[in-house]
Amino acid sequence: MTYCLAMQLNSGLVFCSDSRTNAGADQVSTYGKMHVFSDFPDRTLVILSAGNLATSQAVLSQIRRDISDAAPSNLSSFAYLSEVADYIGELCLKTQEKYAPAGQSAGFSPEASFIVGGQIDAQAPSIHMIYPEGNHITASRHHPYLQIGEVKYGKPILERIVRGNTDYKTAMRCALVSMNSTMHSNATVGPPIELLYYTSGEPGSVTHRVMFDENDGYLRSLGDAWDVKIVEAFNDLPSIAPFLQKLN
Amino acid sequence: MTYCLAMQLNSGLVFCSDSRTNAGADQVSTYGKMHVFSDFPDRTLVILSAGNLATSQAVLSQIRRDISDAAPSNLSSFAYLSEVADYIGELCLKTQEKYAPAGQSAGFSPEASFIVGGQIDAQAPSIHMIYPEGNHITASRHHPYLQIGEVKYGKPILERIVRGNTDYKTAMRCALVSMNSTMHSNATVGPPIELLYYTSGEPGSVTHRVMFDENDGYLRSLGDAWDVKIVEAFNDLPSIAPFLQKLN
Repeated sequence: MTYCLAMQLNSGLVFCSDSRTNAGADQVSTYGKMHVFSDFPDRTLVILSAGNLATSQAVLSQIRRDISDAAPSNLSSFAYLSEVADYIGELCLKTQEKYAPAGQSAGFSPEASFIVGGQIDAQAPSIHMIYPEGNHITASRHHPYLQIGEVKYGKPILERIVRGNTDYKTAMRCALVSMNSTMHSNATVGPPIELLYYTSGEPGSVTHRVMFDENDGYLRSLGDAWDVKIVEAFNDLPSIAPFLQKLN
Repeated sequence: MTYCLAMQLNSGLVFCSDSRTNAGADQVSTYGKMHVFSDFPDRTLVILSAGNLATSQAVLSQIRRDISDAAPSNLSSFAYLSEVADYIGELCLKTQEKYAPAGQSAGFSPEASFIVGGQIDAQAPSIHMIYPEGNHITASRHHPYLQIGEVKYGKPILERIVRGNTDYKTAMRCALVSMNSTMHSNATVGPPIELLYYTSGEPGSVTHRVMFDENDGYLRSLGDAWDVKIVEAFNDLPSIAPFLQKLN
């Protein structure tokens, strides 16, 4: 399993991903799921991947080959981010269709999903989530984040904290808390954690790119403090005793 | 969708369920999912249901018919709770098998799952979760709760708070917070909320049975306080700023 998320803030974009993959409990490995393309003069693009590892690797490898070969369609050729999302969706669908027939009877799924975000020329930075079917959605002012993979455990804190005008340091911290909640409840999501902040401005302005390993001091202090504070918050809630007494 | 949970504490059992069902956004209805059987002299049993409403209604109606008909297998005939779970699993599987062929091409699923808990004679009260396949699991000392339906949003707080020796008032409050988190993130889980506490002892000792509607004062005060305290807890977490400064 995997958990990846991206936020579209007024000040820029935040991306966060875990690095654990598994195919059964005896096949747990570490693979980065954050792919940064920052060598173009007019654009910076970040791709996050979740789902079948063979599919997402095939898609990423085709994306890289298309750049090397200067193919008619490649990451540097599109004028809009939505076209980049179309292109990734098509590659994804093609890969899935190739492998689906062979695995039909085995409970096998070749499905993968992606988030792509970044900036092209002077356009406003944005993010897209690409479904296994190849279609895609963007974030909005009222819902400024997108998630793929194991999305449920980490969603409540995003819902409560992240708005378009959230400052990037709070947003990065919130991304780590969202990731922490997911790792707490699902053993197949795990470190290292990658975290990236891209400031709106001229393409190329990746402001922070951080890799947290399991024993990182800040990541641990954040997780430990959250463990304590959640229990404190619960203990402070109004007791049910007076309510139950009234019933008798 | 549905969310139901049960806890097996040293002092007794807690059950909680929502009452919303939906078959598409224009078919939202209210159906209780907590079924209490307390008319037997030697046992008290509580059944929670999730999944396909037609399947769970068919199973519950067969359970009631078997009691009325004094069938060889009925809720009052079994010596152990695990046999009750077997019986419900068989009824569930039979119902699903009846309707599965007709729905195969329509993205239709007849699957339902159940939790059954209670006490038979002087045996220790316990809870079982029954899968759509008809097999079942119990809670354990280290994992004293079971959930069915939309289980992920409400799981983190259970993990942090509920142990075998948790007192029942804290456990009931935790069940409501778990339900609140689920309703917050999934619009197809909703009130009224049913909450029941069964004290270990002689069968028949249902100590509290409460129905909370949407505007219930305690349920609202709990939800409002939780909203505030979660954000406070987040704001108290160590800032990422010193960490980012160290990088530069």
